[in-house]
Amino acid sequence: MVERTLVKELKHSVGEMIKVQGWVQRIRKLGKIAFILLRERSGVVQCVIDTTKIELTSLKVESVITIVGRVVEANVALGVELQVQSLEIISEVGEDLPFELNKEELEVNMEMLLDHRVLGLRHEKTNAIFKVQAVLAQAFGAFLKEEGFTQIYTSKIVAEGTEGGTELFEIEYFDRKAYLAQSPQFYKQMMVGAGYERVFEIGHVYRAESHATSRHINEYVSLDLEMGFITDEMEIMDLETRMLRYMLTMVKAECPQELEVLGVRLPEIREKIPALKMSEVIEILHRRYDRTDLEMDLDPEAERMIGEYAVEKYGSEFVFITHYPQSKRPLYTMPAEEGMTHSFDLLFRGLEITTGGQRIHSYQQLCQSIRTRGMDPENYADYLEVFKFGMPPHGGLAIGLERLTGQLLGYKNIRQVTLFPRDKNRVQP
Amino acid sequence: MVERTLVKELKHSVGEMIKVQGWVQRIRKLGKIAFILLRERSGVVQCVIDTTKIELTSLKVESVITIVGRVVEANVALGVELQVQSLEIISEVGEDLPFELNKEELEVNMEMLLDHRVLGLRHEKTNAIFKVQAVLAQAFGAFLKEEGFTQIYTSKIVAEGTEGGTELFEIEYFDRKAYLAQSPQFYKQMMVGAGYERVFEIGHVYRAESHATSRHINEYVSLDLEMGFITDEMEIMDLETRMLRYMLTMVKAECPQELEVLGVRLPEIREKIPALKMSEVIEILHRRYDRTDLEMDLDPEAERMIGEYAVEKYGSEFVFITHYPQSKRPLYTMPAEEGMTHSFDLLFRGLEITTGGQRIHSYQQLCQSIRTRGMDPENYADYLEVFKFGMPPHGGLAIGLERLTGQLLGYKNIRQVTLFPRDKNRVQP
Repeated sequence: MVERTLVKELKHSVGEMIKVQGWVQRIRKLGKIAFILLRERSGVVQCVIDTTKIELTSLKVESVITIVGRVVEANVALGVELQVQSLEIISEVGEDLPFELNKEELEVNMEMLLDHRVLGLRHEKTNAIFKVQAVLAQAFGAFLKEEGFTQIYTSKIVAEGTEGGTELFEIEYFDRKAYLAQSPQFYKQMMVGAGYERVFEIGHVYRAESHATSRHINEYVSLDLEMGFITDEMEIMDLETRMLRYMLTMVKAECPQELEVLGVRLPEIREKIPALKMSEVIEILHRRYDRTDLEMDLDPEAERMIGEYAVEKYGSEFVFITHYPQSKRPLYTMPAEEGMTHSFDLLFRGLEITTGGQRIHSYQQLCQSIRTRGMDPENYADYLEVFKFGMPPHGGLAIGLERLTGQLLGYKNIRQVTLFPRDKNRVQP
Repeated sequence: MVERTLVKELKHSVGEMIKVQGWVQRIRKLGKIAFILLRERSGVVQCVIDTTKIELTSLKVESVITIVGRVVEANVALGVELQVQSLEIISEVGEDLPFELNKEELEVNMEMLLDHRVLGLRHEKTNAIFKVQAVLAQAFGAFLKEEGFTQIYTSKIVAEGTEGGTELFEIEYFDRKAYLAQSPQFYKQMMVGAGYERVFEIGHVYRAESHATSRHINEYVSLDLEMGFITDEMEIMDLETRMLRYMLTMVKAECPQELEVLGVRLPEIREKIPALKMSEVIEILHRRYDRTDLEMDLDPEAERMIGEYAVEKYGSEFVFITHYPQSKRPLYTMPAEEGMTHSFDLLFRGLEITTGGQRIHSYQQLCQSIRTRGMDPENYADYLEVFKFGMPPHGGLAIGLERLTGQLLGYKNIRQVTLFPRDKNRVQP
């Protein structure tokens, strides 16, 4: 009887005396009987207590307790409940909670929720978000490992930014300045050239953007991949299609409870995700939505419109946009005919969740691209070296983990799906 | 014939015309015949060329090429070689390499190696290090997932340090100061209390230590775990024992080639890893090694001695040290009798690779511990909140990924096993 039994395993122990441990989610007294809902990582169980034998006066919700009791069948979702023999408080609660946790919805505003982030995570809906997020990230890694990718951990302390000097957080690094990495872009390309050919990284990236929108945050988890010996960006898009399908399959398999709690319907990905050229997208926006102001670039409203369009026209909640003009893409992007590029974005439910494409692999062409942007290749010497000594054609993509989570689970503000969000006004908790 | 065949798959294509792509590792000419060693992510293949038909004058080592040829059996390690029909240069090399890559050992000094990190990674030995490292980190995650742990991504930008204000890198964070996280310690404990109970994180941590030793680096990957509802630190030690055994099994299974290239013998972990109390360790060091200067703490030489002792006495390359005094452990460490603590270190081949233990879960006790160290619990309000509202007994550990890799593969300097090392003098590449 020493071993703890998990709530999800109780159904196998009907008639037995067992021990459970967890948090007191709710206490309800009915004459001489009291009902306690005990919550732990695997579920919630109702515990029936004879209050003439067990004293409950001092017990507050959210206390951590040990209960020993007999498992009996019951007409509840779990199928069983506990007849309590003993109850021990392991960790007492002295104060009142900043908000009520045992309601169906956490009715608190965003600031309050984030100020007390950890307590809010005890609510089953909030809790479920980060279980799904963990599965998304792990599935990303598992799929790529199977495809021959090596996981890498590149430095987040860099001497310069990836795409010029803007939007970088500065670090006091001993007697010099350094910066937080905006992206592992250069490193993942370098690692392709280091001979690993296929690499991925799951790690934080940092953007010192001072504007606060519901879609932006200053620190987020980037799911990055890069692969060598490709023909063009279509190969990356094909890989992403298969990968997303796998990630969704894993979420479905591993998070049935969480999806139910959150009331989430998973999207379907068929053989191919539809792809539209940027020029077609602009044409559609002009024609169907009267957005004549746009020029080869989308704002959030336009992304939503194209998201709608893809559902109506193709029955797909995902849509690739391809053929971006060079002027809208970073210096390492592989050019295509007529000022276009071999690059793409992926919209999911009307929000960009991926940017990717083929990269320039010729040293001379890359130097030229840097100069065209008014910069000096000398400042990119560390990045460029590998291009001098044999670099295969390559490409890759990055997915914002929190954005993907938010779109999948139906949260509008990125802060809701970021564990400990950091923005201009928040570095705590 | 469009599809590329990987070198490791060639043995299944004897007699066929196939396409391979990779780097030119070596060119050897013998009259009218030339031999090229082509290297890619899965292996190296010898390609035999009739130089009367294919012109090689301009080809330099490390160029990226496509070869089409016929697979024939050959008396070489791979079992097959290629009779080349055509050779195309995809990415030309114009300059000489900073060092020779196609020798058995990379004969360059550390600074040179790290200045040209990416090129050095093309050498099979250096390359193998980070494939093994990736498997170690993935196996850590896979094992814990199976044990019911949730992977988390906590912020690396924090308002204060974990253990007082020393050794922190300062960030210019909009109009205030923030710091790079030294450890996810507080967050992982908070996530236990958030109801996840069992969490792990694989992520960078930052230490602004200005001294440069072969064992320290300013940014490293920490394998962190924390679990609730434990009895004491022995449960964490038991978990780590099983986990390390699993990680070694995975390295053995997934990296046979890499282990052979590196000439590595994997250690064995039997039923239990031996554990010595700190007082016993000090006694042994006094008695057997004449180290009468030590007082309940070890220096690197003493760690090596105890590592030797464990091999001689127990036949184990791992040894736990337990019962550290309170004065040597951080504020969250669970005290034990006589000024001791419920904490441990793990030495592997004479180097500390893990610190762990049980943590204080009582709010009052934790406040007291903070005050005893001359600090104010008010400054730890974000951390402490969850302890007021029901915190289970818990504990955990952290493993330095690079240290573990170094000890396993026999590298003395942590920089050799860090992909892009950061120290006082280096933020590049």
